[in-house]
Amino acid sequence: MIDAVKSVSELRRLIENAPPADQGALRAAQAHQAVLTKPAGALGRLEEIAEWLAAWQGRHPPRAERIQIIVFAANHGIAARGISAYPSEVTAQMVANFSAGGAAINQLSGWLGASLQVIPLALDTPTGDITQEAAMDEDACLAAWHAGMTALDGAADLVCLGEMGIGNTTIAATLSAALFGGDGGDWAGRGTGVDDTGLARKIAAIDDALAHHGAPLADPLEALRRLGGREFAAIASATLAARHARVPVLLDGFACSVAAAVLHAVNENALDHCLVAHNSVEPGHARLLEKIDQQPLLDFSLRLGEGSGAALAAGMVRAAAAVHNGMATFASAGVSGPAD
Amino acid sequence: MIDAVKSVSELRRLIENAPPADQGALRAAQAHQAVLTKPAGALGRLEEIAEWLAAWQGRHPPRAERIQIIVFAANHGIAARGISAYPSEVTAQMVANFSAGGAAINQLSGWLGASLQVIPLALDTPTGDITQEAAMDEDACLAAWHAGMTALDGAADLVCLGEMGIGNTTIAATLSAALFGGDGGDWAGRGTGVDDTGLARKIAAIDDALAHHGAPLADPLEALRRLGGREFAAIASATLAARHARVPVLLDGFACSVAAAVLHAVNENALDHCLVAHNSVEPGHARLLEKIDQQPLLDFSLRLGEGSGAALAAGMVRAAAAVHNGMATFASAGVSGPAD
Repeated sequence: MIDAVKSVSELRRLIENAPPADQGALRAAQAHQAVLTKPAGALGRLEEIAEWLAAWQGRHPPRAERIQIIVFAANHGIAARGISAYPSEVTAQMVANFSAGGAAINQLSGWLGASLQVIPLALDTPTGDITQEAAMDEDACLAAWHAGMTALDGAADLVCLGEMGIGNTTIAATLSAALFGGDGGDWAGRGTGVDDTGLARKIAAIDDALAHHGAPLADPLEALRRLGGREFAAIASATLAARHARVPVLLDGFACSVAAAVLHAVNENALDHCLVAHNSVEPGHARLLEKIDQQPLLDFSLRLGEGSGAALAAGMVRAAAAVHNGMATFASAGVSGPAD
Repeated sequence: MIDAVKSVSELRRLIENAPPADQGALRAAQAHQAVLTKPAGALGRLEEIAEWLAAWQGRHPPRAERIQIIVFAANHGIAARGISAYPSEVTAQMVANFSAGGAAINQLSGWLGASLQVIPLALDTPTGDITQEAAMDEDACLAAWHAGMTALDGAADLVCLGEMGIGNTTIAATLSAALFGGDGGDWAGRGTGVDDTGLARKIAAIDDALAHHGAPLADPLEALRRLGGREFAAIASATLAARHARVPVLLDGFACSVAAAVLHAVNENALDHCLVAHNSVEPGHARLLEKIDQQPLLDFSLRLGEGSGAALAAGMVRAAAAVHNGMATFASAGVSGPAD
C-alpha cells in the first residue's frame, strides 16, 4: 500500500514506477492451463483472465474470493448548465439509495457476494464549472486522490471500480478530448438520456471547457485537476494503489475508463493490471477503449454506471478462477490427448 | 410436461403447437422495470433478460434460483473418418471426468450453484457413418428424443443445455447445411483443433453426407434422424419439453444451436423461449445465429461445449433477476426522476 501522497510529482512517480507483472506466476498459470482436460485455448477469454489474475496478483493459483466494489460519488458544477437529464440532487439521493440497499449495484453486489463501499466525495461542494474555471484546486484534487487510495482493500483479490455523479459523462467526454484529441462532437453521448437540445448544450459545454483551459490540458494530471471531477481522481487513484498492492482491477464504463486513462497517458503500461468490464452504450467509450488498447469483457448495452458492469464482469473473473483452479488434468483424469 | 412421444408426427405437432409467451407476466415485468431507480433502459440486456424470463416462465416476478444444466453425450460413426483432433474414446473418458467432477462444466456448475446432469446416450453404439447411411433409425431417434424430454427438470427456473461428442462439430455443420443451405466449406470449422488436412477431410465428409442423403434432408426432423446424432435429438427435445413446461432455455454453442434450429425450421417461433449463451469461435455458429435470429449474450471466444457458455450466461440471467426483483423504485427510494 501507498502512504499518503503529498504532491502531484509524487503521484507522477508512482504512476511511472508501476510494478510489472509477475512473470513466474504467469508462466505457472500458462503451464497449468496447458494440461487441463480441454482442447488448448478452448476456454478463450476465461483462460486469458485466469492468467491475467495470476500475473497481477503475483501468485499461482490465482484467487477470486474476496472482491471489493468501490463506488465513488461526486457532484459537478457543469451540471447547472442543463447537460444532464437528471438534477444534481439525484447524486445524493442515489447515495442514500445505495446505503438503503435499493440500487442496481446493491443487488449485483449481493449476487456476487462482494463487499460494497460507497464513498461520497464532498457532494455539497460541486466542482467548479469547467467552462469557467478549474474543477478542483490542488488541495481538493489531492484530497480526492487520497480518498481513492485509502478506499482500496489491499487484501482484496479483485477490485471493481464504479461511480455516480450527475453530469459526469460530460466530464468524461471533456477529459477524453483533452487526453486523446477531438472535440465535444467526437466524445459526447446522451448519458442518462438527455434529449437533442441537451446533447447540443453538452457538446457546446465540452468545447467551451476545452477552449477555456487550452494548453495546460496537455499534462494528463493537470487535465484531471482542471476538468475533474473528484470521482475521476479517486478512480485513477484506486487504480494506481491497486497496482502497487497487486490487486487486479475491473473498470466499469466510460467514466471509469477515462479516469484510468489518465494513468495510461502518463505511462502506457499503467493499466496492464486492469480489464474493462463492458462496452458502454455511451459512444465515447468504444473510441476511448481503442486508445487505451482494451477489449471489454461484456457487451450488454449498459449505461448505468455505479460499477454495475464491473460487478457483472467480476462474476466472470470468479468463474475463470474456478475453472482454472478446479479442473482435472489429462493425466489425473485419464483422458486421451489429441490423436496426433 | 410431455408424455412419452410415440411418433414423429406427434413430435411435429408439439413443435407446431409451442405455447406462446405470457403477455400478462411480460407487461408486469415491463411496468416494474419502468419505475426502478435507474434511467430507462440503462441496464440494457439485463432488462431484456428479466422480461424474457417473466414472459416465458409465465410469472412476475421471475425466478432464477433453481438452474439445471444438462449435458448430453454421444458418439458418431463419422469420427472414424479422421475429422476430429481427438479419438472417439474421449467422449466416454470425458463423461467419466464429468462424474468425477474434473471438467470445466463441473467447476462452472459449482460456481453457479446449479444442478448438473450428464446423460450418456448409447456411447458404445456410435451413430451410423452419415456419408454412407442414416445416423439413426426411427426407434433410435425417438429414444434420443425421449431421453431429452425425461432429462428436463420441469420445476427448474432455467435450463442450460450442453453436449459432448467427439466429431459432433462435423454433424453440426452438416445439419446446418441441410437446414439452411450451403456446403461443407460454408459451415465447417476446426472444432477441438483439427489441422488443415483434417479440416479438408471434414469438409469432404460433410459434402459426401449431403450428397448421399439428398432430397429427404428438406424435412428438418428427417434431417435430424439421418444426420444425427443422439445428443442433437436430445437437445432439440429438451428445448421443446422446456417450452411446454415454461422453463426458459440457454443454448450453449454451435452444436446446441443447430440442434435447436431443427425446431425453428419446423416453427419459426419455437425458440422464442431460448437465448443463445455465447458466440462460439466455430465459424458456423455466427452464420447459424443469423438464420435463427439470435443475439448471443457473451463473446468469450469459447469453443469447448459441455454447456460451459450456457453456465456462464446463466450467471448473467441470475444477475438480471436479482436486479429486477431487488431494486427500489423511484417512489420508495425518494429519488427524483428526469428533470423535464
